[in-house]
Amino acid sequence: MGSQHHDRCPSSQPPQVLVIRPPPVFAVHEQYISNKFHILKAYDSPLPTHDFLQANAQFVKAVLCSGNGPITADVLRDLPALQLVVSTTTGVNHIDMAECRKRGIKVTNIQDVFSDDVADVAVGLLIDVMRRITGGHKFVRGGCWPVTEQYPLGSKLGGKKIGIVGLGNIGSKVATRLYAMGCIVSYTSRQIKDSTPFTFYPNVLQLALDSDALILCCALTNDTRHMINNKVMMALGKKGIIVNVARGAVIDEAELVKCLVEGEIGGAGLDVYENEPNVPKELFGLDNVVVLPHSSACTNECFQDAAEVAVGNLEAFFANKPLITPITNDF
Amino acid sequence: MGSQHHDRCPSSQPPQVLVIRPPPVFAVHEQYISNKFHILKAYDSPLPTHDFLQANAQFVKAVLCSGNGPITADVLRDLPALQLVVSTTTGVNHIDMAECRKRGIKVTNIQDVFSDDVADVAVGLLIDVMRRITGGHKFVRGGCWPVTEQYPLGSKLGGKKIGIVGLGNIGSKVATRLYAMGCIVSYTSRQIKDSTPFTFYPNVLQLALDSDALILCCALTNDTRHMINNKVMMALGKKGIIVNVARGAVIDEAELVKCLVEGEIGGAGLDVYENEPNVPKELFGLDNVVVLPHSSACTNECFQDAAEVAVGNLEAFFANKPLITPITNDF
Repeated sequence: MGSQHHDRCPSSQPPQVLVIRPPPVFAVHEQYISNKFHILKAYDSPLPTHDFLQANAQFVKAVLCSGNGPITADVLRDLPALQLVVSTTTGVNHIDMAECRKRGIKVTNIQDVFSDDVADVAVGLLIDVMRRITGGHKFVRGGCWPVTEQYPLGSKLGGKKIGIVGLGNIGSKVATRLYAMGCIVSYTSRQIKDSTPFTFYPNVLQLALDSDALILCCALTNDTRHMINNKVMMALGKKGIIVNVARGAVIDEAELVKCLVEGEIGGAGLDVYENEPNVPKELFGLDNVVVLPHSSACTNECFQDAAEVAVGNLEAFFANKPLITPITNDF
Repeated sequence: MGSQHHDRCPSSQPPQVLVIRPPPVFAVHEQYISNKFHILKAYDSPLPTHDFLQANAQFVKAVLCSGNGPITADVLRDLPALQLVVSTTTGVNHIDMAECRKRGIKVTNIQDVFSDDVADVAVGLLIDVMRRITGGHKFVRGGCWPVTEQYPLGSKLGGKKIGIVGLGNIGSKVATRLYAMGCIVSYTSRQIKDSTPFTFYPNVLQLALDSDALILCCALTNDTRHMINNKVMMALGKKGIIVNVARGAVIDEAELVKCLVEGEIGGAGLDVYENEPNVPKELFGLDNVVVLPHSSACTNECFQDAAEVAVGNLEAFFANKPLITPITNDF
């Protein structure tokens, strides 16, 4: 498997890997990856992607991607020889998994390389919103402190009921961190996790009713799309806080904006959005909202690890060895 | 003890408590405290403090204060009948303790009411600086994301060596939180703490040499004033981060500004300053510095608790009962 095209090249030629749009990890570690593979760069061509793929990618067996360059059914149709999709992300909602399954195309992600870092930012966003760090910083930088002595009080984390939506790798790490801060942690997940001490709720609505904050850590699937809707936000209530380090579309973003603007919920810490890199402008004027540029996984250490996992999968594939981090089940 | 002046009033008159400058806790809970005591407000008078005290406070037995209104030797001289200083803070570096001891004046603080909240903000500041939360927020709000896709990478917390300066109530709570995030925690303190699993360093210089970040959680004393000097910052190094939730003067602030501006250390998260509410303006242009308005203890829950402890001490004093949170040792 995977060696036909490689065999036709002289042995000094590295195998070919298509990049339609450079993943952030690739942008940072291009040199390292390019030393190992011949990168076919669709994004460097003046041609529309479809035309480029038709002209140059008919023998391509492996593609490297992330959320900024979706591997749709259309793209897959343009790549008849494709056998492997390597994603530099954990979530693979940007890949048409059904089509890949149908065609026998293997998909790899980077598993939980990012999960500690994402959990750290989830906790950072919760502390920031509850304790007004970004707001306090703006207050000081704006020269307000010598004028108004007391910046508005924040809210204590200890003793607060925090509901985690999705207790996978990231959610579990968020739970451990918040437990150490004295929070009362509960969760909802596809199934109850017997190995955790945290209270399970059968659905997000009941969790929201009984929580001071929700931390979204689940994958984006058909089941979780717009799971956080108006009803859930109303259940969370006027003091309730939402932190989203999952995917933007887990929340009905238009409703979120409305609830924040109208004060129906207490605040939000957001790393992800429905139409990245576009963030609803209505949020920019709100002191109780912290917005990040989908950077919860963006550390030097993680990007290095992710590049190594991606390269490892590509090397394994071209050497006919087992993939390191294949996605074997429905995600 | 403490009933002479009270006894001269009709029993319906609440005992008198002097407030020279309103502590933030008092400002928020004035109603609750004023319901229990007759508050003599020096700050409401057009007279200079000295004249006001001479004219109105010669029989005052109890004063309520915080860091914004120091109880100096001069103030103490103006209060010949004083028997009790109630501070709404944990640190009492704003009170001339030597003079109080000499005169037999009792001092109360609020012990560790604030320590969980301060520890949360210490962790929040560390996450913020290392993971660029405030910077990322500014990047998104400034509309930069659709233009520049990748915000500069941050630094992973897991595996980092974090040195805690002062492993008291707050320091211990910071340690627990960072341990849950996978950090390698060490500390320096007046004495080694046998009950902790963390590595002890005999002095701050050695700790700095071996740490990626320092978190300052110690009291301000003659021994700790300007403890974080140029030498310590150089030992911490160009990637090193300083978080200060202790007191501003624990750092040589002029040196700190210089080291930050010249890139001799990697960043800082600051809640406290040498001359509050004034913050060095040179810090305002630096993306690797987060500045808060001494708000690490500022939550609704804490202020409520602190008001209750302060009132409890005053009530105990006027009822000739033992104080709830007296400071018995040198601090």
